[in-house]
Amino acid sequence: MDYQGILDQIKNKIDCRQLSGEVATYIPELAKVSPDKFGMHLCSTSGDDFFFGDSNEGFSVQSISKVLSLSLALLYEDDKLWERVDVEPSGDPFNSLVQLEYENGIPRNPLINSGALVVCDTLISNLKDPKKEYLEFVIKVAGNPHISYNEKVAESEKANGFNNAAMVNLMKSYGNIHNDVDTVLDFYFHTCSVSMSCKELANTFMIYANHGCLQETGEQVLSVKRTKRINALMQTCGFYDEAGEFSFRVGLPGKSGVGGGIVAIYPNMYSVAVWSPKLNAKGNSTAGMLALEFLTDMTGSSIF
Amino acid sequence: MDYQGILDQIKNKIDCRQLSGEVATYIPELAKVSPDKFGMHLCSTSGDDFFFGDSNEGFSVQSISKVLSLSLALLYEDDKLWERVDVEPSGDPFNSLVQLEYENGIPRNPLINSGALVVCDTLISNLKDPKKEYLEFVIKVAGNPHISYNEKVAESEKANGFNNAAMVNLMKSYGNIHNDVDTVLDFYFHTCSVSMSCKELANTFMIYANHGCLQETGEQVLSVKRTKRINALMQTCGFYDEAGEFSFRVGLPGKSGVGGGIVAIYPNMYSVAVWSPKLNAKGNSTAGMLALEFLTDMTGSSIF
Amino acid sequence: MDYQGILDQIKNKIDCRQLSGEVATYIPELAKVSPDKFGMHLCSTSGDDFFFGDSNEGFSVQSISKVLSLSLALLYEDDKLWERVDVEPSGDPFNSLVQLEYENGIPRNPLINSGALVVCDTLISNLKDPKKEYLEFVIKVAGNPHISYNEKVAESEKANGFNNAAMVNLMKSYGNIHNDVDTVLDFYFHTCSVSMSCKELANTFMIYANHGCLQETGEQVLSVKRTKRINALMQTCGFYDEAGEFSFRVGLPGKSGVGGGIVAIYPNMYSVAVWSPKLNAKGNSTAGMLALEFLTDMTGSSIF
Amino acid sequence: MDYQGILDQIKNKIDCRQLSGEVATYIPELAKVSPDKFGMHLCSTSGDDFFFGDSNEGFSVQSISKVLSLSLALLYEDDKLWERVDVEPSGDPFNSLVQLEYENGIPRNPLINSGALVVCDTLISNLKDPKKEYLEFVIKVAGNPHISYNEKVAESEKANGFNNAAMVNLMKSYGNIHNDVDTVLDFYFHTCSVSMSCKELANTFMIYANHGCLQETGEQVLSVKRTKRINALMQTCGFYDEAGEFSFRVGLPGKSGVGGGIVAIYPNMYSVAVWSPKLNAKGNSTAGMLALEFLTDMTGSSIF
Repeated sequence: MDYQGILDQIKNKIDCRQLSGEVATYIPELAKVSPDKFGMHLCSTSGDDFFFGDSNEGFSVQSISKVLSLSLALLYEDDKLWERVDVEPSGDPFNSLVQLEYENGIPRNPLINSGALVVCDTLISNLKDPKKEYLEFVIKVAGNPHISYNEKVAESEKANGFNNAAMVNLMKSYGNIHNDVDTVLDFYFHTCSVSMSCKELANTFMIYANHGCLQETGEQVLSVKRTKRINALMQTCGFYDEAGEFSFRVGLPGKSGVGGGIVAIYPNMYSVAVWSPKLNAKGNSTAGMLALEFLTDMTGSSIF
Repeated sequence: MDYQGILDQIKNKIDCRQLSGEVATYIPELAKVSPDKFGMHLCSTSGDDFFFGDSNEGFSVQSISKVLSLSLALLYEDDKLWERVDVEPSGDPFNSLVQLEYENGIPRNPLINSGALVVCDTLISNLKDPKKEYLEFVIKVAGNPHISYNEKVAESEKANGFNNAAMVNLMKSYGNIHNDVDTVLDFYFHTCSVSMSCKELANTFMIYANHGCLQETGEQVLSVKRTKRINALMQTCGFYDEAGEFSFRVGLPGKSGVGGGIVAIYPNMYSVAVWSPKLNAKGNSTAGMLALEFLTDMTGSSIF
Repeated sequence: MDYQGILDQIKNKIDCRQLSGEVATYIPELAKVSPDKFGMHLCSTSGDDFFFGDSNEGFSVQSISKVLSLSLALLYEDDKLWERVDVEPSGDPFNSLVQLEYENGIPRNPLINSGALVVCDTLISNLKDPKKEYLEFVIKVAGNPHISYNEKVAESEKANGFNNAAMVNLMKSYGNIHNDVDTVLDFYFHTCSVSMSCKELANTFMIYANHGCLQETGEQVLSVKRTKRINALMQTCGFYDEAGEFSFRVGLPGKSGVGGGIVAIYPNMYSVAVWSPKLNAKGNSTAGMLALEFLTDMTGSSIF
Repeated sequence: MDYQGILDQIKNKIDCRQLSGEVATYIPELAKVSPDKFGMHLCSTSGDDFFFGDSNEGFSVQSISKVLSLSLALLYEDDKLWERVDVEPSGDPFNSLVQLEYENGIPRNPLINSGALVVCDTLISNLKDPKKEYLEFVIKVAGNPHISYNEKVAESEKANGFNNAAMVNLMKSYGNIHNDVDTVLDFYFHTCSVSMSCKELANTFMIYANHGCLQETGEQVLSVKRTKRINALMQTCGFYDEAGEFSFRVGLPGKSGVGGGIVAIYPNMYSVAVWSPKLNAKGNSTAGMLALEFLTDMTGSSIF
């Protein structure tokens, strides 16, 4: 498959400046990013790399981190985790408290904010130094020692994170948060603040295209079954209340973040990350959605 | 892959009499079925058949028909359909009116009752003799002229179909039903009443494993892209408020019906149908869910 | 109290043509009414009448009928009625199905559509000729033999009543409608279609200001306790999702209808009806709300 | 009216030990109270006092304080308050976040937790020393210098107040809380912690039976119109999702608290407080509801 040729066509077909959408402004650090940034990076399981544009520039991964914190939590909690988080699509915006109340503090899935906050709570219970050990896990999966938290972003989130604070408090009122509210929020905001480029994200998510193995060393970090399940969750829950739309148009498991990044994987074939900060009304990158739709249309390949 | 060996193991591992669950009783015709029925049939894309138990006995396909009516409607409506039905998981029971009201009469997706009723409405607008032409379409895709409506079941549904009548009326109040309420209900109940065996269902759904082509003749009935999208919808929306659970445990696109049938497909590999009438609390066959989970675990294969 | 002087001031202060609001258009018969109609009639318990404007012109009482059908139903059902309808404010629009589904087909109160439909269902179960006997009851309470159904309005409602049909069907699916769906709707639409003037309405509702007694004959039609309860229901539930606003601004039990009428009572003091067809966003007469607010402000009297 | 005779009958008719209900246990300080406490105190506008049982023993007023903080806030905010809090019954439990989210952080009314939290926020903005000045206001209205905060209760609330913390954070995310989250919670929990006896409560609420005047001095603390509106709010919103039931059975404006107290007023006639800690499923005192129902039945008097 001529992936580079296809990526070049995508680059030419999509003019970010023409597309509608707004850069996330709820925290000042995100609002500073240029709306015209656009990059894409695809790693094939055969070990090749294809890319264009700003694919080497770091951005805030935000909710994409939810897949990584979930993966780490499953190593400690295994199926016990599912007593505290469900695996169903939410059909609601990422920050809704409605279902949480109707369903007694049990989040719909680990890829929305409330679910990721519970995941973070379990990591705090299981790890001695959660921030340090989480970062070590990301570095290992990414195969890249340069990945780090962006403290400015984390601080900015904390200063504006009233909706997330509402969720943690609501879940704690139902007994579904075991640690201190501020500790959970601080750790969660740090996981969101991690900065990565498309290249780094695509490399990191190879593990989900590779049935849980690291590409370089072959080490089985996640079991085959666990990887399959994480991919299933990305497929049904990775895009908030646009999960169906992404599945419908792109047909791959993936995860988006309000920093404008989207990562998607095609098991056995490739991992791909795209970045463009302008978001549609549902909080997903406009150009990113389009780029991945072109990719699966042009390659004639999806998991379906 | 030794599919027959795996099916034999599944048969031995699952004792339907021990499993919890209730046969659907909301219409008398369904309540008559023995709770201990259990059958499974798998067709591989290479043309082989594997099966056990009551795989040759007909049962009411019920909601499984929604995939077929959607497929037929797309031939006439194409993307115009999506102005009247969304493609998002509902996160609600199959018969909920709540989202329908919050979202102005636009159903969440075509695989829940409200969505299928809109699909039926479009077929009535497009077809001269909807019941006749729908059946002809099913017969063609199934490659089987013996498939027919079960008038008793259709009548029984009509006599008890107050919830569906509520939905059609609510959507008509929003202008999203164009034909007469009773005509829409009568057609919808007929599509649900079709009787098929596991063998017939697995044969019929081969079209979705085959990128839209009929297995026998190779005729491209649905385009590749449309088939991919229908599969994506089955993946995210095929099991009401248990779509995530099915995706998580089984990892295949599929569709269930309250008659106790479930059909699932693995693109390029196989189509499989299982039948056991005892339903879990969310309206899906208990043994059927389990059988398909064993299948993907034992074959080590899912789309993820 | 110089009621006529106060009414004259109200007439001068309120210029209907300047007020915002829209005449109800969901049925053609209501849309035909001139938006500038404005009349008011107050009957004191001492037997005097005060009025201005179009107070003698008949209009469609619509939801105001719900108080009368409830009163008649209580004569037959007594407290059994409360097993099928609750007495709580809905906090939702008059036609919402959301709570009905969350609360298993039990309407929040008898003064919203769903509740009134259940009330009508009980009347059909209790009466030999519901339409004839309901009208006889209204005629008796009104002390006026000329009151009648407007068949054109009833027909017009039926042809457009999909939302009400949705409600009846939904409640029937929960077992909370005992009679035939179409029979219930036909009777309900007839009760809404009754035509009355402000004068006739004020006279009719004197029974609720008079602790259940007819003004002319002194006959105790409703017991003191039942009348108190009906008044309490008007206070908390008489204005859909604007019940609090009306209570807050006017401070009297009352009931509005989409025909533009509002009737309110001050126990021991007076009954008052006002009519102006332009409705605010919540379906209540803009001028009517204002007129009654002026009335209680200027008389310095409310029940509080 | 022989109020003492009626109170004696009420005392004899109601056996608290036989009644169902549970003492509030969500904070340890409340859980310590004996479930068999039962007292009642009625002050007539003519200056007489009637009482029985534990009417002189202090208990935690809890949500009854919401009426007092609202009254104080209106002195500073007047109608501007209604831009930040609505006046509609909620139809939901006292601590629900669902409507708050659907309605963009605007609470339904000032007598549910979310609304009272906004009221407290306005007091913090308006007062130099909110805790001191609020207490001075209560002392003035009560005509009793011995009223004070219960710091143990306030601390206990704070340590368990995750649901209230969720609400404040959610409203702050919508911009409807202007002060620091912890400051608002601390002040709110203090207002709830005030301890008063039935006698003290009945005396305090005389102001609402007296059109805003203090009984002893005649000072007009609240205007007639404002008092009427506060009473209207108690009528429609004073009992969470049981406001309709209380209005229906008792027919008086009132307010309950989870400490087991209920206070109600009959304008121009009396103010009455009752206390019994066992709460029904909706959080209102079982014996208290019953006692007030007997009172208005036996006196044959309600506002309706």
